[in-house]
Amino acid sequence: MLIVGELINTSRKAIKEAVEAKDAAYIQKIAREQADAGADYIDINCGTQFGKEIETMEWLVETVAEVVQDKPLCIDSPDAAALDAGLTLAKKLQPQFQPMINSINAEQERYKEVLPLVTKHDAKITALLMDDTGIPQTAEKRLAVADFLYKGLTEAGVADENIYFDPLIQPISVDAAFGQQVLDTVAGLTAKYPKCHKMCGLSNISFGLPNRKILNSFFVAQTMVVGMDGFIVNPCDKLMMGTVAAGKALIGKDDYCMGYLMASRNGLYD
Amino acid sequence: MLIVGELINTSRKAIKEAVEAKDAAYIQKIAREQADAGADYIDINCGTQFGKEIETMEWLVETVAEVVQDKPLCIDSPDAAALDAGLTLAKKLQPQFQPMINSINAEQERYKEVLPLVTKHDAKITALLMDDTGIPQTAEKRLAVADFLYKGLTEAGVADENIYFDPLIQPISVDAAFGQQVLDTVAGLTAKYPKCHKMCGLSNISFGLPNRKILNSFFVAQTMVVGMDGFIVNPCDKLMMGTVAAGKALIGKDDYCMGYLMASRNGLYD
Repeated sequence: MLIVGELINTSRKAIKEAVEAKDAAYIQKIAREQADAGADYIDINCGTQFGKEIETMEWLVETVAEVVQDKPLCIDSPDAAALDAGLTLAKKLQPQFQPMINSINAEQERYKEVLPLVTKHDAKITALLMDDTGIPQTAEKRLAVADFLYKGLTEAGVADENIYFDPLIQPISVDAAFGQQVLDTVAGLTAKYPKCHKMCGLSNISFGLPNRKILNSFFVAQTMVVGMDGFIVNPCDKLMMGTVAAGKALIGKDDYCMGYLMASRNGLYD
Repeated sequence: MLIVGELINTSRKAIKEAVEAKDAAYIQKIAREQADAGADYIDINCGTQFGKEIETMEWLVETVAEVVQDKPLCIDSPDAAALDAGLTLAKKLQPQFQPMINSINAEQERYKEVLPLVTKHDAKITALLMDDTGIPQTAEKRLAVADFLYKGLTEAGVADENIYFDPLIQPISVDAAFGQQVLDTVAGLTAKYPKCHKMCGLSNISFGLPNRKILNSFFVAQTMVVGMDGFIVNPCDKLMMGTVAAGKALIGKDDYCMGYLMASRNGLYD
């Protein structure tokens, strides 16, 4: 399971304030905490910094890379120029790693802008299953978007293993079928593209409902059953990381339950 | 989701003592608590009462039926004569309900003894996926046992809807593949026998590991994804019942999340 640490995002108040105050120490603390808690990638997203996205992205990448040399970065932005700047710097400061881009999708403009960046930087790529009509409302239609993205990415030379499909989770409070739709989509992706990965952010599933952490956590365990193998989450959240460890053990992806035993010993279930 | 309340079992110390002391009040309290907590069936198992199984079964069925007229009984015994006695009395005391038998399997002797009881009492039947060689160690072999049991039961006149396959869960601490084996078995049953049900007891999955309730709970949520729709559990366990409610909502089996909201309001996640 690939864990992408989601905390360095300027849509979060504390990060926004730290970015505006150029408080490198705080950013570095959050970056290290995520790396130490078991994140495989550290996401960097300054999408809310309109007009100064490039400079903010570069400052964040430099700041994080200064203290994180053991984990690669996931460069996350709606702005293609900011992606390019972030990726260029990430590859310079962490030449040992393959960065990840978050994200491409099938919207015409976004697709055209991001596709060349994937090959230019030899990056892993998160591929959101949406197009210019929005998020398709059936598993079949999402799989059709996946077909389009898979074809485009692989024809451009991207290896299956570097593609991380994101089915885009929507709230079950809006439509009770939204959870099962994601499960069906992921099962379909697993059957059709066995070498590609499936990744998602979680919190949308429980939007508008009480006890959200419980729902998010069970949904993580459930999506693993159909082949989800990546999560964009807060790796410092004990319940979430404990869920990933338990879920893996239950589906037979944890030899001798060593990861689960370690998670128990580290107090993730206390 | 069918919830079978597992607490009235003489292998539990408090129940054994109550049975030996003919403490009807205690048995009735446990029976009512399970019914009120949302059990759909109340299991009655006195399998440890060697030599006095029939009289104990009859006393238990009478005792429980006296206070539980809103939920049917699940008659559970290794002894066919005790099953017959329990079922006969259950049908007399609760004529409005179809009782459940726990269980038949493909062991020659057990199969021959229990099959006639299923049709005689027009009961629902839990069908354990094991035979004289024990529990098969692959999903394919378990499905072959299911084929045998399905054929025998349906040829005897049992409707698909009255068959509850139990894949028999074994500890992931013994073999890391045991969880996935159950998931594969249930997925296979769902594909092959869409009108039959799948049911299981849970606690074996986590045997020998720390934080067992967490593992049991995640596994319930995971098995639902592949079609498990019945659980033999303690319905008074808030975490377990909360898991069932959350799991159902996440796989789209809870319109408007009403069951989940009710579970929240009832404090199952506090």
